[in-house]
Amino acid sequence: MSGLVESLGTTDALSRLFSDAVVLGAMLQVEAALARAQARTGVISDHVADVIAAAARPDEFDAAAIGAAARASATPVIALVDRLRQRVEAIDASCAAYVHKGATSQDVVDTALALVLQSARAVLRLDHERLERALRDLSDRHASTIMTGRTLLQPALPITFGLKAAGWYAAVRRSWRRLSIACDEGIVLQFGGPAGTLSAVGADGLKVSEALAAELSLPLPDAPWHSHRDRFAAIAAAFGIYTGTLGKIARDVSLLMQQEVAEAAEPGGGSSSMPHKQNPAGCAIALAAAVRTPGLVAAFLAAMVQEHERAVGGWQSEWPTMAAIVQAAGAAAQAMAEAIAGLRVDEARMAANLRAAGIGGDADLGAAEQLRQRLLEGA
Amino acid sequence: MSGLVESLGTTDALSRLFSDAVVLGAMLQVEAALARAQARTGVISDHVADVIAAAARPDEFDAAAIGAAARASATPVIALVDRLRQRVEAIDASCAAYVHKGATSQDVVDTALALVLQSARAVLRLDHERLERALRDLSDRHASTIMTGRTLLQPALPITFGLKAAGWYAAVRRSWRRLSIACDEGIVLQFGGPAGTLSAVGADGLKVSEALAAELSLPLPDAPWHSHRDRFAAIAAAFGIYTGTLGKIARDVSLLMQQEVAEAAEPGGGSSSMPHKQNPAGCAIALAAAVRTPGLVAAFLAAMVQEHERAVGGWQSEWPTMAAIVQAAGAAAQAMAEAIAGLRVDEARMAANLRAAGIGGDADLGAAEQLRQRLLEGA
Amino acid sequence: MSGLVESLGTTDALSRLFSDAVVLGAMLQVEAALARAQARTGVISDHVADVIAAAARPDEFDAAAIGAAARASATPVIALVDRLRQRVEAIDASCAAYVHKGATSQDVVDTALALVLQSARAVLRLDHERLERALRDLSDRHASTIMTGRTLLQPALPITFGLKAAGWYAAVRRSWRRLSIACDEGIVLQFGGPAGTLSAVGADGLKVSEALAAELSLPLPDAPWHSHRDRFAAIAAAFGIYTGTLGKIARDVSLLMQQEVAEAAEPGGGSSSMPHKQNPAGCAIALAAAVRTPGLVAAFLAAMVQEHERAVGGWQSEWPTMAAIVQAAGAAAQAMAEAIAGLRVDEARMAANLRAAGIGGDADLGAAEQLRQRLLEGA
Amino acid sequence: MSGLVESLGTTDALSRLFSDAVVLGAMLQVEAALARAQARTGVISDHVADVIAAAARPDEFDAAAIGAAARASATPVIALVDRLRQRVEAIDASCAAYVHKGATSQDVVDTALALVLQSARAVLRLDHERLERALRDLSDRHASTIMTGRTLLQPALPITFGLKAAGWYAAVRRSWRRLSIACDEGIVLQFGGPAGTLSAVGADGLKVSEALAAELSLPLPDAPWHSHRDRFAAIAAAFGIYTGTLGKIARDVSLLMQQEVAEAAEPGGGSSSMPHKQNPAGCAIALAAAVRTPGLVAAFLAAMVQEHERAVGGWQSEWPTMAAIVQAAGAAAQAMAEAIAGLRVDEARMAANLRAAGIGGDADLGAAEQLRQRLLEGA
Repeated sequence: MSGLVESLGTTDALSRLFSDAVVLGAMLQVEAALARAQARTGVISDHVADVIAAAARPDEFDAAAIGAAARASATPVIALVDRLRQRVEAIDASCAAYVHKGATSQDVVDTALALVLQSARAVLRLDHERLERALRDLSDRHASTIMTGRTLLQPALPITFGLKAAGWYAAVRRSWRRLSIACDEGIVLQFGGPAGTLSAVGADGLKVSEALAAELSLPLPDAPWHSHRDRFAAIAAAFGIYTGTLGKIARDVSLLMQQEVAEAAEPGGGSSSMPHKQNPAGCAIALAAAVRTPGLVAAFLAAMVQEHERAVGGWQSEWPTMAAIVQAAGAAAQAMAEAIAGLRVDEARMAANLRAAGIGGDADLGAAEQLRQRLLEGA
Repeated sequence: MSGLVESLGTTDALSRLFSDAVVLGAMLQVEAALARAQARTGVISDHVADVIAAAARPDEFDAAAIGAAARASATPVIALVDRLRQRVEAIDASCAAYVHKGATSQDVVDTALALVLQSARAVLRLDHERLERALRDLSDRHASTIMTGRTLLQPALPITFGLKAAGWYAAVRRSWRRLSIACDEGIVLQFGGPAGTLSAVGADGLKVSEALAAELSLPLPDAPWHSHRDRFAAIAAAFGIYTGTLGKIARDVSLLMQQEVAEAAEPGGGSSSMPHKQNPAGCAIALAAAVRTPGLVAAFLAAMVQEHERAVGGWQSEWPTMAAIVQAAGAAAQAMAEAIAGLRVDEARMAANLRAAGIGGDADLGAAEQLRQRLLEGA
Repeated sequence: MSGLVESLGTTDALSRLFSDAVVLGAMLQVEAALARAQARTGVISDHVADVIAAAARPDEFDAAAIGAAARASATPVIALVDRLRQRVEAIDASCAAYVHKGATSQDVVDTALALVLQSARAVLRLDHERLERALRDLSDRHASTIMTGRTLLQPALPITFGLKAAGWYAAVRRSWRRLSIACDEGIVLQFGGPAGTLSAVGADGLKVSEALAAELSLPLPDAPWHSHRDRFAAIAAAFGIYTGTLGKIARDVSLLMQQEVAEAAEPGGGSSSMPHKQNPAGCAIALAAAVRTPGLVAAFLAAMVQEHERAVGGWQSEWPTMAAIVQAAGAAAQAMAEAIAGLRVDEARMAANLRAAGIGGDADLGAAEQLRQRLLEGA
Repeated sequence: MSGLVESLGTTDALSRLFSDAVVLGAMLQVEAALARAQARTGVISDHVADVIAAAARPDEFDAAAIGAAARASATPVIALVDRLRQRVEAIDASCAAYVHKGATSQDVVDTALALVLQSARAVLRLDHERLERALRDLSDRHASTIMTGRTLLQPALPITFGLKAAGWYAAVRRSWRRLSIACDEGIVLQFGGPAGTLSAVGADGLKVSEALAAELSLPLPDAPWHSHRDRFAAIAAAFGIYTGTLGKIARDVSLLMQQEVAEAAEPGGGSSSMPHKQNPAGCAIALAAAVRTPGLVAAFLAAMVQEHERAVGGWQSEWPTMAAIVQAAGAAAQAMAEAIAGLRVDEARMAANLRAAGIGGDADLGAAEQLRQRLLEGA
């Protein structure tokens, strides 16, 4: 798919993570680590592992060809392994039989995705933390800035902007915490062989599994999970909730930025036709992510009903869905981190709008400040 | 909506929980508890609270009329409070002004939903635990029953049925644990008044909140969350993943039950036209739930982008979505508890199919047994 | 499910259509019509048909019991037919064997849904036509009312309110036309017997089909479509697009109704806590429908992958999904018909906001008027 | 996004169509056609149009840079137009002011997507027609091949394989026809300028629109439709239904291909670990598409609620969603065209399974043949 087509739904860093080079690299990293793990546990010799690792160099593989071949077998791994085996053969033909030994396609695809998700999480964390800090600062700065509280888009009662920002902060923080837990639990090794029994590596299957997990710095789960996708589904859903939370903030900011309201404005972006127009471009990015993501999460959940030991269609549908979910979250986090960090707040306008609304600027906002502090502390 | 239309997507117990009587009761319970909490904190007198509690008797309210009136104001609470106020007035007119004091519609709707969810969770737990036990027993009974492992619906390698059942068990258990955590965190009091500032109950807002939470035995969150729906979204998503996991088991069982495979059969149900036909009726219920729920979860997540302090459309969309998600999960759990508890397993047929597949019945399944035990222990 | 829980997602008329009484009535209407059709084609005697028709009186059936029994067999039809057969037996035992003759559960369920959809369409049309007229009038009245055109929620260039209303009109009209076509094509008889071959009525199967279609005033499709759900899916999708279009209008109106903009206001509804507040209640109903419906459409489409001649789970999931989609559309249409018919437009404020935006009130809006007329004519 | 990540959800031809080169080319084609249309209608000179067209050469533009810049303004068009203007300036500086004249970002993005969709439709048609022919042939060849009809995955009554294949054929044909109508109606020019009034090109706006539509061979709709997305939504939904129909066929074939059933087999693909295993690889591709697409359609419908004249987030979310929907449909169509064209049918096994099921192989299948012919003719 086109970078252009995806451009508003990713970031530079995340689009690189899901690029052919990185994804191919992750798959080859799994194959090499498998060989090393088998060497470590005495299943194969160190020499074989070294040859396989030497052959597993991403720049010697043609991602486009592997992608095209994937359509004939419903997996990219056959073509990948064929090419890897050829390269191993060229170095030392006696090693070729040990390539991909004991593994199945989905071991490679799932573990590679786990590796990419691990990296994506680290990338996303930077923007998330920037956003969290910016929201906290915003709330503190405006602890006593009084403004119109709005319900059903109508003036209701006064609030403080500090409370509003603290609500954003706590929601983002809760959502991130859920996402972190889902990632901690769900980003794990996949290794089970064709039917998930480890039988293809013999009685030492579990030792190889442990070694492989250690090689890749991934947790070893209780057992292979080829057709049990709840862990990945929980990650997808947690991303979805995180993005939904960012979308809520973006909605609020874009509404506050309306010229008729003019209480806050993100640094924003321009227009192709009206040079002096200031657009809530960051909010647009985050809202675009929030509007797409629920359907993507549904697509992921729908794939959970997988047949027997490895499914026909279920897991094959997951990769692009997860990639889109993660990148959309990252696009939203980056956009909102910038929007909030650079948010211009017009306190005078807030006061004026509140007066115009005629909803009692003399309200007691003591409890509001208590709530604000609870939100900043407690989440 | 018709009980008939919903009949395959709920259980007797859960459909009662979402009935008008119970939902109306929950809303009135909130109004009465609010009065008592305000009496406890000295905001109103005990007498007023007693009168309001006495008036808040569900059987004196016309749910259909309240439902119809709800469409004029986008909330059922106005008509409910009007009727409650009338009833209070008839007892002691001086108390009428204190009805619903300090609350907003959404406080009542969200807290009532929290109460119903609390009950639903307890109901669902019974079927879940029955299912968990049945799966564990099934796995133990068939620890060494060898059968065909199938990938992409083709014979791959031998597995044990005990391992397969243990995989089901661990996935259900993980999914239930996630659901429990989401419920622990998300089933909380909603109380904030019109703009979420507690201002309408004055400086003692937080004390009233605490007392109200205690009255209803609901946790008090850091602050009102009228337009931050991540907690409920996490519950919805966790239900979705739970149902998806049940759907996977149902798919497997229905496939094993095909006459040409005939390795296992649920007790099942009949046919309107073919009396002797045995249908996987429980699997059908669970699969129907699993096919509907991802879209329902998407509907819930899509509603997260809510405007300002209380939204226009967002929360108003949630009630039926959550009700459908919870009931579908309950229908699936009940159906699969019965299907698994009564599952007939044909070991001879498993062996025969494996032989026919010609995929090496002499495989070493030692690691499979290790994995099985890890699944039963470790989840 | 509770009427209260669903109250914001339906109308009085539509909730009646999906009530137990009407749905049960539709199913019995199918059974009676089947008997009459078989009498007309000589398969059974007129006497048998009369007895069956006499027995098929909805008020003698217990919908709740049938719903509960449905969960045991994954269909409500077995219990329905059992009860019908009992009633026939009580009148003339010799006729009992002819009840439901040649039909399968899904024939009854699908055809009953077709009948309910036919009625729902007629109900919805009233609100739709009211809305269409109101939009057209609004556009004509404001053909030369100049206001701010807004992009990304920022002032862009002047437009006329007439053009804006004409855009709403044409989109609603296109969406309704698509829905009408989908209904014309998709609301058809389902009759095929257990495996869709008409074999259970012998060689005259097609004649019975034709007679049955005539009895029920439903088109006869080329063949039974038990596991081919594209026709119903097309209806669900068309409803989804219709509701999305209404949601767009509701979004615009609710934004125009913000106190800071104040260019238009729907008659609206009140607040449970702030008596003088005017809420965009109609927009809230429509937006709630629009936020839920995409996920419901996904749920319907996800059920299309149905196994063989009749599916395990697929069609069993459809009924509540379709009922929710249709009722949500009806709620949105009714709400927006009232909102637009009663819309108060403040031309002075439109002019003032435009001046304040400083985006050139002297723009040539000649083309805008041409476009407006094209929209009113051409759709 | 990675070609690898997307590899199972597209075809070679379609991935090219959504590549940066083609998408960029389509956007530049719009800019060039706009200039020519304005020259034709006398708004600018032929010379200016020639210079702009000469400058609009895709290989002189850096798609990656434009994509990255898009994130700052929530549109790729600003960077595109900047670069185009630079190139025009380098040729003849006096022409630079006429670049993108009268257009807005979304005019370019939407019209470019319309052009790509037009091409995608033509590409998809080839596989569709191949599939349709293969299904028809299959049905004719097996008009009297008797097999087990299966309901809820259990043997029900005999059917003919010809009837089953005819059901597939008719469903695919109906779904394609709906898709064709949606494309005919929805693939239209977008041109309206910043607020959709054509004001930026003056009184001749409609003439320019007509000329632009002619230049691009796209129908001219009644008016710009920047925030009315029903046409594109109808296309997305029609693709969704088409893919769902293909998924149903894939489900059936993959079930028939189970070794225990073995009534039919697609040519299929191999396995990375079990060389001799034959997998339903085509079915896996189609089922993966069918499982993803309902959520993608939901994502598209969810974006319909767009604000005012051009939205903040709505349309910005659409591009990747539509691209994924179309490519998934194409992948499914290609996979099923190959699977059906190469389908091996085992009539003896069908007969044997039917005998084993004991459901009356002597059934009268006369009506079945009538239905088959109606399906082939009538759809």
